[in-house]
Amino acid sequence: MAKILLKNAEYLASDAVVKQADIAIEGTEISTIGNIGNDWQPDKIIDCTNKLVVPGFVNTHTHAAMTLFRSYADDMLLMDWLQNKIWPAEANLTAEDVYWGTQLAIAEMIKSGTTTFADMYFFMPEVAQAVSDTGIRAVLSRGMAGVAPTAQQALSESEAFFQQYHRSADGRITVMLGPHAPYTCPPEYLRKVVELAQKLGAEIHIHLAETAGEVEECKAKYGQTPIALMNELGVLDCGVLAAHCVHLSEEDIRIMKSKNVRVAHNPGSNMKLASGIAPLPEMLQAGLTVGLGTDGAASNNNLDMLEEIRLTALLHKVKTYDPLAIPAKTAIALATEMGAQAVGLAAITGKIAKGYKADIAIFDMNGLHWYPRHDRLSLLTYSAVSSDVDTVLIDGKIVLEGKRLTTIDEERLKQEVASRALRLVKA
Amino acid sequence: MAKILLKNAEYLASDAVVKQADIAIEGTEISTIGNIGNDWQPDKIIDCTNKLVVPGFVNTHTHAAMTLFRSYADDMLLMDWLQNKIWPAEANLTAEDVYWGTQLAIAEMIKSGTTTFADMYFFMPEVAQAVSDTGIRAVLSRGMAGVAPTAQQALSESEAFFQQYHRSADGRITVMLGPHAPYTCPPEYLRKVVELAQKLGAEIHIHLAETAGEVEECKAKYGQTPIALMNELGVLDCGVLAAHCVHLSEEDIRIMKSKNVRVAHNPGSNMKLASGIAPLPEMLQAGLTVGLGTDGAASNNNLDMLEEIRLTALLHKVKTYDPLAIPAKTAIALATEMGAQAVGLAAITGKIAKGYKADIAIFDMNGLHWYPRHDRLSLLTYSAVSSDVDTVLIDGKIVLEGKRLTTIDEERLKQEVASRALRLVKA
Repeated sequence: MAKILLKNAEYLASDAVVKQADIAIEGTEISTIGNIGNDWQPDKIIDCTNKLVVPGFVNTHTHAAMTLFRSYADDMLLMDWLQNKIWPAEANLTAEDVYWGTQLAIAEMIKSGTTTFADMYFFMPEVAQAVSDTGIRAVLSRGMAGVAPTAQQALSESEAFFQQYHRSADGRITVMLGPHAPYTCPPEYLRKVVELAQKLGAEIHIHLAETAGEVEECKAKYGQTPIALMNELGVLDCGVLAAHCVHLSEEDIRIMKSKNVRVAHNPGSNMKLASGIAPLPEMLQAGLTVGLGTDGAASNNNLDMLEEIRLTALLHKVKTYDPLAIPAKTAIALATEMGAQAVGLAAITGKIAKGYKADIAIFDMNGLHWYPRHDRLSLLTYSAVSSDVDTVLIDGKIVLEGKRLTTIDEERLKQEVASRALRLVKA
Repeated sequence: MAKILLKNAEYLASDAVVKQADIAIEGTEISTIGNIGNDWQPDKIIDCTNKLVVPGFVNTHTHAAMTLFRSYADDMLLMDWLQNKIWPAEANLTAEDVYWGTQLAIAEMIKSGTTTFADMYFFMPEVAQAVSDTGIRAVLSRGMAGVAPTAQQALSESEAFFQQYHRSADGRITVMLGPHAPYTCPPEYLRKVVELAQKLGAEIHIHLAETAGEVEECKAKYGQTPIALMNELGVLDCGVLAAHCVHLSEEDIRIMKSKNVRVAHNPGSNMKLASGIAPLPEMLQAGLTVGLGTDGAASNNNLDMLEEIRLTALLHKVKTYDPLAIPAKTAIALATEMGAQAVGLAAITGKIAKGYKADIAIFDMNGLHWYPRHDRLSLLTYSAVSSDVDTVLIDGKIVLEGKRLTTIDEERLKQEVASRALRLVKA
């Protein structure tokens, strides 16, 4: 069992206080935090002087392989973007494209301090392969659209995917079901999803209340909000990770709390697509669990959780005219501990604490923007850049060291995605 | 006269199109753009393969030395922040502190691609010294508060500073007058400022309409908005760079257009301090000149113009529910060409064009977030990070090379600011 010692670590403890200690890692877990004496012999020592050790970020909502469409179609109206750009390009995707697009996403996430992501896409066995190959932790869902010709196929693929991949890759992969959204999954289809979820004991990852138009359409069609409709259909009883939740009524929030719906808040995507500003302070006030997510790279356009932390802290201040709304420590908690809760992994990741998996990001504080250092959490939230991430451990293994990926061939990756992306948009 | 050749440059031309060419620099200026033959013998060749060459950013509103208070006091109410944290700490500032705090700001700005900044603070001869020593371009103003005990001193210092430093540092420094704001400068004081401006032929840098409270107070006290009041007092006839302009009426915008008031839009600061969202689309629609600014590092908390570009593109989309609001190319134009107009330097900087000063930032596109490359302006706006800046030229001189500062001793700088910052907040 490999032993790694993080020596002289300034680390973010779970009460949002930065403490100083040595951190011992044995196998996949943090075994001791404190003063580690010379009698404990590590295989490797990482000197953490002038570094900040934080829990690896949990990206609670992605469509990883969409990195292939990064910068392909921006500053467009949603339906124009989807119908004339994204859907035609996605129609050209092969399983192998999804593997490489996902690997690009994972490489970028690791380099910016993310150790767990919750993904919804298709060709999911290839996504699982990329997760397995790279060493990251992931919560994977096969996206299902009830209105698509592949509706039935998606259900059976989801079942097979769950059975084959749930708790695979040394336990780093968990699987949820991924009905896309109420506007693409009619009630009769969602009932089948709920049935399948109950049969498998699977949780559900779904887009809810992302745009005002979607909520209006749902009300017109079904006489209730997407949240209320999901509640009626039994979706919320399955354990739900709900992406976006931008347009919520007070009653929606009450229902979500009563069903313990966990939210993936995606400020960057919501801003770029002009969806709106989610009622984050209200959701937190109501006691909801909220994590942060980047959404896909086609609507962000990076997978940088530090940016989502900063946007979260900034956006809700200006929306509410309250500079105390979402302080630095809350934004960081959403990206770590609460994010882990949101994706159902609170027992093992999101914290630097004894017994937790060693999912850790180590920031280099040498950059000028880290000076002076009155408050490290403020610096992380408002000043740091993703390229400050120096070292990342996932499940006790070093996947980034001195800013270099240890499990990914970066040059080959760049070549693969560059040529594949060209083919996808030309075809 | 030194000759530098940027070989094989993909560069941002002023019509927002990325073109490919060689760029020849002679002395301080861009002398030729095109295919430079072997008969032109440069002293230095910079290979721009896999790089993106853009005009250096113009940061139109800073209080540079406030880097010393970075992370000192965040997530606070404005008056609590000022009265209990910032003002007591500022009272301890020495001239030498301001020199080092400004050098830290300049170092950070150069490293993130900024080549010109417009500053308002005090101990301005030391700010000018830092500008002179580091090689950056700057528009400097001695901040003046009519309600402060130093009101008269500030006026006479401003006059002396203008006379000694305007067009100094090989022409890289220009000087404006810096009355702080209508709420700190009563009408009788502003009349003196206008008189001085007319005498010197100086333009004015001022904070206007930053918060709703300030506008309400102005209306209650003077029966008109800050913009209308400034117009009545003749301030707007001097040539004005107005920071913030968050809370404007339609009539304000009409007045600003008629007086050609140029605006420094500071989305990061406005979000963090919960000031509000400036009517940027409306200002641009009315034909106003708008640049971007970071404001001081105490209210941002970095001096990263790429972040302001991104916030500008994202924030106005979500505010207006329009994904077409402020597209990538507009956000970049605000940070470059229009920023140069805003600070009165449109004739010499903000563009990569023959005859312009060689104020240039060269981004390394090797990072994974630059893949694939469907659209370089989208990548710069939505995906890039400031640490991608590899090389910076200002006034034809290389001030950053391979991400290393050539005019600043970074290690000494860190030591100076770390020890000074501690003293300032302890005293």
